[in-house]
Amino acid sequence: MDSKRVAKETAQTLSSYLTYRAVRLVISQLSETNPPQAYKLSQISTETIQDGEAYLQHLMGQDPEMAFRIMTVRQHLAEEICDYLPEMVKSQIQQTNMEHRRQHLERLTQLTVSDPVPPEPPND
Amino acid sequence: MDSKRVAKETAQTLSSYLTYRAVRLVISQLSETNPPQAYKLSQISTETIQDGEAYLQHLMGQDPEMAFRIMTVRQHLAEEICDYLPEMVKSQIQQTNMEHRRQHLERLTQLTVSDPVPPEPPND
Repeated sequence: MDSKRVAKETAQTLSSYLTYRAVRLVISQLSETNPPQAYKLSQISTETIQDGEAYLQHLMGQDPEMAFRIMTVRQHLAEEICDYLPEMVKSQIQQTNMEHRRQHLERLTQLTVSDPVPPEPPND
Repeated sequence: MDSKRVAKETAQTLSSYLTYRAVRLVISQLSETNPPQAYKLSQISTETIQDGEAYLQHLMGQDPEMAFRIMTVRQHLAEEICDYLPEMVKSQIQQTNMEHRRQHLERLTQLTVSDPVPPEPPND
């Protein structure tokens, strides 16, 4: 497995996701302070932001100030949360893996005991 | 901003993305060793894996062994690459932000000098 390539593509995906979160954050801030601008930004951002860089490049042509604001917010987001992600993701995968295994075992056990032999009446 | 919530949702997104990468990896391994199984798995996984846990739960009902294999691969992937992601994402966002700013400045400068005054002929 080419871990380096997977790491690089995962980092790109994460960076695009943070761009998307930054856009959502800015839209929610603007909806309080400047609803028409919030509406304008959400109109520009209707399509899912699959590629954060292509999105920003497009926005830069339409509204550079807005693009700068989103760039600042995504950088802030990255600095705020990135360091916590490795532990969170690793433990989440570990826990959910365990949970899937547990559920599977439970299902197997239920299948085995689904048609149980009725207990013998007590001898007295 | 509720950073904790953003961090949690980002970790979930990342975990689903690693599940998707694990599925792709297993399909590519199987296409070498067991093409009919590779085909079967890719048929089960046609829809994008937006929610890794729901996907695994569904797969567990259809083919538990395959689900176990994907769970093992995604855990391995997480352990292999997660620790590198914070630095990669932060520096990537920093660099691409700089690049967007540079391009914007360049465009502004080109607009300003698009109709330049021709240089004066040298006095001799």
